[in-house]
Amino acid sequence: MSTLRERFEQPALAALLKLTPRERALVCRELTEITRGGYDGPLMDELRKLAAAVPERAYHDSAQVLLRTHELAGAGNYESCLSSLPLIRACFALDLVPDGGKTAAELIVGRGHIAPGFYAERYVRGSFPLVPLTTLHQGGLTGVIHRDLGFNNTMRYSLGVGVAQAVSLAMDLARRGDDRKVVCLAGDGELQEGTTFECLRFAYEIGLSNLVLVVDANGRGIEPLRKPLNQSYLASFLPRVDEVDGQDDEAIQRALGALLSRPGCAALVCRTRKGEHSFKPASAAGKTSRPSFAGTSGRMLAAYQQRAGRDLAVFTADMEARFGLRGHLPYSNTGLAETLSVGLTLQLPEDTLKVVATDAMYFMDSLSMVTEASSSVRNLLVLAGRSWGAWGGAHNATNLLGLLLGVRVYEPITPAEFDAVLDRLAAHPGTAHVASMVDARFDPPSVDCSSRLDGAVWMTPPATARPQAAVVTFGYASVLVAEAIRDTGVPHLHCAALDPQLDPGTFAVLAGCRRIVSVEYNGVQGGFGERLRAKYLLPIEVHGVRHDIANRVHARQLALHGMDPQTLRRLLARLGSHEADNALAYA
Amino acid sequence: MSTLRERFEQPALAALLKLTPRERALVCRELTEITRGGYDGPLMDELRKLAAAVPERAYHDSAQVLLRTHELAGAGNYESCLSSLPLIRACFALDLVPDGGKTAAELIVGRGHIAPGFYAERYVRGSFPLVPLTTLHQGGLTGVIHRDLGFNNTMRYSLGVGVAQAVSLAMDLARRGDDRKVVCLAGDGELQEGTTFECLRFAYEIGLSNLVLVVDANGRGIEPLRKPLNQSYLASFLPRVDEVDGQDDEAIQRALGALLSRPGCAALVCRTRKGEHSFKPASAAGKTSRPSFAGTSGRMLAAYQQRAGRDLAVFTADMEARFGLRGHLPYSNTGLAETLSVGLTLQLPEDTLKVVATDAMYFMDSLSMVTEASSSVRNLLVLAGRSWGAWGGAHNATNLLGLLLGVRVYEPITPAEFDAVLDRLAAHPGTAHVASMVDARFDPPSVDCSSRLDGAVWMTPPATARPQAAVVTFGYASVLVAEAIRDTGVPHLHCAALDPQLDPGTFAVLAGCRRIVSVEYNGVQGGFGERLRAKYLLPIEVHGVRHDIANRVHARQLALHGMDPQTLRRLLARLGSHEADNALAYA
Repeated sequence: MSTLRERFEQPALAALLKLTPRERALVCRELTEITRGGYDGPLMDELRKLAAAVPERAYHDSAQVLLRTHELAGAGNYESCLSSLPLIRACFALDLVPDGGKTAAELIVGRGHIAPGFYAERYVRGSFPLVPLTTLHQGGLTGVIHRDLGFNNTMRYSLGVGVAQAVSLAMDLARRGDDRKVVCLAGDGELQEGTTFECLRFAYEIGLSNLVLVVDANGRGIEPLRKPLNQSYLASFLPRVDEVDGQDDEAIQRALGALLSRPGCAALVCRTRKGEHSFKPASAAGKTSRPSFAGTSGRMLAAYQQRAGRDLAVFTADMEARFGLRGHLPYSNTGLAETLSVGLTLQLPEDTLKVVATDAMYFMDSLSMVTEASSSVRNLLVLAGRSWGAWGGAHNATNLLGLLLGVRVYEPITPAEFDAVLDRLAAHPGTAHVASMVDARFDPPSVDCSSRLDGAVWMTPPATARPQAAVVTFGYASVLVAEAIRDTGVPHLHCAALDPQLDPGTFAVLAGCRRIVSVEYNGVQGGFGERLRAKYLLPIEVHGVRHDIANRVHARQLALHGMDPQTLRRLLARLGSHEADNALAYA
Repeated sequence: MSTLRERFEQPALAALLKLTPRERALVCRELTEITRGGYDGPLMDELRKLAAAVPERAYHDSAQVLLRTHELAGAGNYESCLSSLPLIRACFALDLVPDGGKTAAELIVGRGHIAPGFYAERYVRGSFPLVPLTTLHQGGLTGVIHRDLGFNNTMRYSLGVGVAQAVSLAMDLARRGDDRKVVCLAGDGELQEGTTFECLRFAYEIGLSNLVLVVDANGRGIEPLRKPLNQSYLASFLPRVDEVDGQDDEAIQRALGALLSRPGCAALVCRTRKGEHSFKPASAAGKTSRPSFAGTSGRMLAAYQQRAGRDLAVFTADMEARFGLRGHLPYSNTGLAETLSVGLTLQLPEDTLKVVATDAMYFMDSLSMVTEASSSVRNLLVLAGRSWGAWGGAHNATNLLGLLLGVRVYEPITPAEFDAVLDRLAAHPGTAHVASMVDARFDPPSVDCSSRLDGAVWMTPPATARPQAAVVTFGYASVLVAEAIRDTGVPHLHCAALDPQLDPGTFAVLAGCRRIVSVEYNGVQGGFGERLRAKYLLPIEVHGVRHDIANRVHARQLALHGMDPQTLRRLLARLGSHEADNALAYA
């Protein structure tokens, strides 16, 4: 089957009923065309071909396309795309967007989430079909910049990586004697990251002369910036910094065109506007949805502060919303600067509880600072938010933290377990505690590890003293497994600690099993199951994430990584039958 | 025993014969005084007390003290200390150096290596004895800033961390209503790190008004800077930037005094001079010592380039000397900016071999960028230098890299193994290869894994088909173990891969052993031995580094971590006796 069909047919069919009659008619014509076959080339070529085969357009304004795309997706970064749309149009007008041949300059898009803006503009220009647009974030089209979808670069993990890609490419063009420039489309939020400074400084120091930094200065990262982008900072490394009204298509085009035709590096600061970071469908207006478990962190911390009478200092790199801090307790937002948010804990009073609310992926650029803090700071709590959103995310981040000396990692799934982490930290202030905070909504289980945080507790106790099989789970996987194997009777042991200590009785039960499966919604490598194998030499079959986290919303992630109820039930039900065999054998 | 005595007596005795008669007389008087007892308080108090008890000074110029201290140490960062000495004197003159009471401002020393400059100045001022000065880098005094030795902060891993500590402290002083300022002593090299930008930007954005950044602008990191410190960059975040001749004690004192008495933040750029980064004793002048294994990287890479006819792009963050690049092949020095040196590989041509020559510790602040690169860049080789120098170093860095998806880690100990890593990368360009490069001199063993890089080879084959015991070692530990158990006949299996694949025959031999010990000069957690346990469920006894790497020169590190010949021999000789038992049993 062609990549195009494989990737978009099913999600497009699933979206059909949400479409307007006109959209539906066009989508059906495109699907029919795809079914006719002959779409086997590189993806972008085939998309162009399909667009040419069904040339009628449902919309002629890319802003309208963007809105519809996000209405259908029900999520995404609509406002980010919209804020950059005039810049994107200028890129098309100035022949910067890859379309088969050689472009006037090389474009690197550092604003990772604004791919839909480019698709929308391609659509109205007739080189992109409608089908993929109906599948955004629904398993078809990703919102993140990717080489496979008409970009020179791919964005995966690192904020500010676009500027590094641009400098890397600019150096290489210069070395090869290609005198074209590199245009780097960046956001003012992303320019808060330290690595972007390293890039601009280095470009200046080596005398690079072919870099044009175009900044979508909308005054927001995820949260509003404290102060507008500092242009004299840019001017200290770039010989020319121009400013333009970022909502005026023609002004941008003129200004960028001028910078491209002049020799030397430059920045173009485009003053734009942006609303809330995440798209909320109109139907959701006014509704306050139930927060994720991570989203209750603020409330839980405030309750702890009250109970324990502690002095708290909370730092976050633009992620207050993820943790629901606002209105519950004061916090310092460092902007998009992970290393700094850890670094600010370094010289506070010993007894102060220092909370760093970060993301289980972003902190990977601050592991040295985390190491610094974990060895020198007392009373350090790292809230490592586990997201399964569109922006990928290294699944093994939690495991990496778990390898640092002087760090204990937990994944609480009930408020009581979260409290137990705080109490444990108070009792062991010299050990940094990491709470992997689940970015999902679920009913807390009735059984938890709050009374033995470092141990294990049976969610489904074995029916006999010597069961033949068992499943051992870590954190959020316990919730998923409990749901999947409800009523099967499979003995199910839950741990909140990444590196639990089994009591002799529990160990004996496991050691007597013919089969033990461990489940973690984490990377397998160096994770929960492998640690149990290494520590106890138990022949555990490890089930976890074996590939990188893909760009999907959470519900679709589950299936991709074998964490959906069906897969888990299939995997674990067999253990149940062993259990039954065993019961028979003893009968 | 008092901390003072415990820490300094032995190394001071060991240094006695290297002293001048006058130094020796004074050291003996101090040692006698210590032996008399009563030195049981906090270390700095006791040092002050001892200095008062033997008030005669061997020197009255701290520059002279610095030189003597480094001559005795035979190593260290003499030039760094010397370049900052006038700044250090100003700190004393302006009452910024902690000495029991409250100081006029809080001093944070971000230049991690310049502690000896403070000790030298304390010495001539009569508040520090001579004994510790004779023990620098010899197991007594460390050259790195530490709270226990009269500083407000401790430096461990992270470059640029001092600026973060200073901002953390400045925020806290402001919050507590303490109107003193924080003086941060930084180097122009360290200001190349991205995190220092995050700090200055944040200080500016929150309107901090009590930070004075004093920069030792000597124009060098480890290597010379490409361009002098960009003062307009500093001025874009700090309301006032003054410049002063950094070799003029009085001018510095005046300028810093003025900035301290004015309201608001400021920077004082002190133009200083610095020679070679690492101290070489006069006796070593002209001699070219044999390079470490890591130091032959440049030569080995150049040979490979010739052999394979590959296009190479080499990046290093100020570490060309560690890898011996100069004169062998071109490279780009990014300054002290790890994340950038990885980031610059992101947009190069696929077939180019990208080499990042970094440090097994510093790259921890770029793990997200490494993840980005390992998933998007083909033909990526990371040279992770293993140093055991004075600046600490997280021992588990190699293990952390080994957990990233799409990364294979090796620790070659022969040129042939290094070549095998390069050949393997050429055959698997989609997998990033990490070569942990040993910063030590040793004779390469005659047996290596070059013909089976992912497997294992017997350095000492078992004498029987079914030995009772064996030792399995990783990388550099193989050299140490081979040396330690020479002629004992203990079967010894060597691996170059952090995560080796044992062939069935080798596995069968190990599975038949009553005892297996693994040895790695790496962190135990998630390392070589634990991986073997997890993968093969073999009851391996893991010997490796269990604490953080301390501030010692390599020879002293070995003993601290049980990697010295005596400890290894004691640990492993018992395996030999099992072997003997077994031989008897079969006789």
